[in-house]
Amino acid sequence: MKKVVLVRHGESAWNKENRFTGWTDVDLTEHGVEEAVKAGRLLKSEGFRFEKAFTSYLKRANKTLNIILDQMDLDWIPVEKSWRLNEKHYGMLQGLNKAETAAQYGDEQVLIWRRSYDVPPAPIARDDVRSSLNDPRYAGVPKLYIPDTEALKDTVERALPYWLEVIYPSLVTHNEIIVAAHGNSLRGIVKYLKNISDEEIVGLNLPTAVPYVFEFDKDLNFVKDYFIGDPEEIKKLMEAVANQGKKQ
Amino acid sequence: MKKVVLVRHGESAWNKENRFTGWTDVDLTEHGVEEAVKAGRLLKSEGFRFEKAFTSYLKRANKTLNIILDQMDLDWIPVEKSWRLNEKHYGMLQGLNKAETAAQYGDEQVLIWRRSYDVPPAPIARDDVRSSLNDPRYAGVPKLYIPDTEALKDTVERALPYWLEVIYPSLVTHNEIIVAAHGNSLRGIVKYLKNISDEEIVGLNLPTAVPYVFEFDKDLNFVKDYFIGDPEEIKKLMEAVANQGKKQ
Repeated sequence: MKKVVLVRHGESAWNKENRFTGWTDVDLTEHGVEEAVKAGRLLKSEGFRFEKAFTSYLKRANKTLNIILDQMDLDWIPVEKSWRLNEKHYGMLQGLNKAETAAQYGDEQVLIWRRSYDVPPAPIARDDVRSSLNDPRYAGVPKLYIPDTEALKDTVERALPYWLEVIYPSLVTHNEIIVAAHGNSLRGIVKYLKNISDEEIVGLNLPTAVPYVFEFDKDLNFVKDYFIGDPEEIKKLMEAVANQGKKQ
Repeated sequence: MKKVVLVRHGESAWNKENRFTGWTDVDLTEHGVEEAVKAGRLLKSEGFRFEKAFTSYLKRANKTLNIILDQMDLDWIPVEKSWRLNEKHYGMLQGLNKAETAAQYGDEQVLIWRRSYDVPPAPIARDDVRSSLNDPRYAGVPKLYIPDTEALKDTVERALPYWLEVIYPSLVTHNEIIVAAHGNSLRGIVKYLKNISDEEIVGLNLPTAVPYVFEFDKDLNFVKDYFIGDPEEIKKLMEAVANQGKKQ
């Protein structure tokens, strides 16, 4: 069996403050670091031996990956980074406190913005300091590709080419791969592999730093998927994510 | 001006215990982590903005690089890893305490092993658990290339093709590059660029985690080199490295 393990990054400073992060390059919290250490130890004890890793252009995913690989003594394996694995771009909401936004616009609007499949938040202005258009890290990306806001649909559609053209074909030459990324870019991959509907995917809340394994047969057909870890704990983590953005 | 910054990894557990490390995958100490943090902050404050990074297959160099890039908010840049940047292979000395070795063989023999240009220590046996031949991390490297011991000459000769064919040509498309590696693989690059003799290179003691800048003009001719940091502190660090391996 060939295996791809998806991992959502650990807690970031803005997760903790309940702010919309999106493409903002926010660091992991101490707890987020601990979550990554735990994931690395778990993967090591389960006998995983990744040969290649993929991650986004954002620090919280890069560091989650580095910590996991370090725990597994796999610091040396090749790592490829792509903006296509970035979190959903939250447009003008980036930097705003979720509870404040909920108090101003109501739970319903916030839930639409966070969880509808095809309604994007209002776009960030091109001259806003928060715009990614002038961030040198995206200098190598065609400007046409750089979003000023995204619905989940947009995130799925820009993450998928990277799965289809880069990650998945690397299974031809590798047996075990890890992808450290974000709730919404990973939803794109999971939606595609499990053929989940637009309506259902918005209800899928991936737990942070819990390894999510996808197995493929020798012809690279998807066979089965499962989380690694304590089922009760995973359930609680998924509920915690689902409750984010509710009025406080 | 285009710039390549060479950085020797921070203190490792075996540096501290005064053991021959070589290709053994030893972790950084707390102090080594602090050295890397300091180097990252210094490079950031000096306005460096690396576009590409290179490192070895060894954890202490990988982590030094990751920490530096994190301090500079450059976690996202592409990193390429190669066994050719690994530390000198110390053969059968790997794992031995330097002071013990000195007591047994005498300062002179230890100094020859550590510092002569072309005398390698006795080779590690192919069936020794310490041999790199059966380490899966080198599965992608032709067995012919994997050393069982190295003189500094051998380290220089296997590091140079990577400088000549990979690192240096990347200056055509990048302005600032960082290379995080080891005392002896970096000596190879410095020897070549500064045309240092075989006799003199053995006396060059690069300080740990001090950024060493090489500047190149637009035609990629080497122009000048300098360390970044407090000259007095750098001098002390170089002396500390030179004193390693003396009888205690």
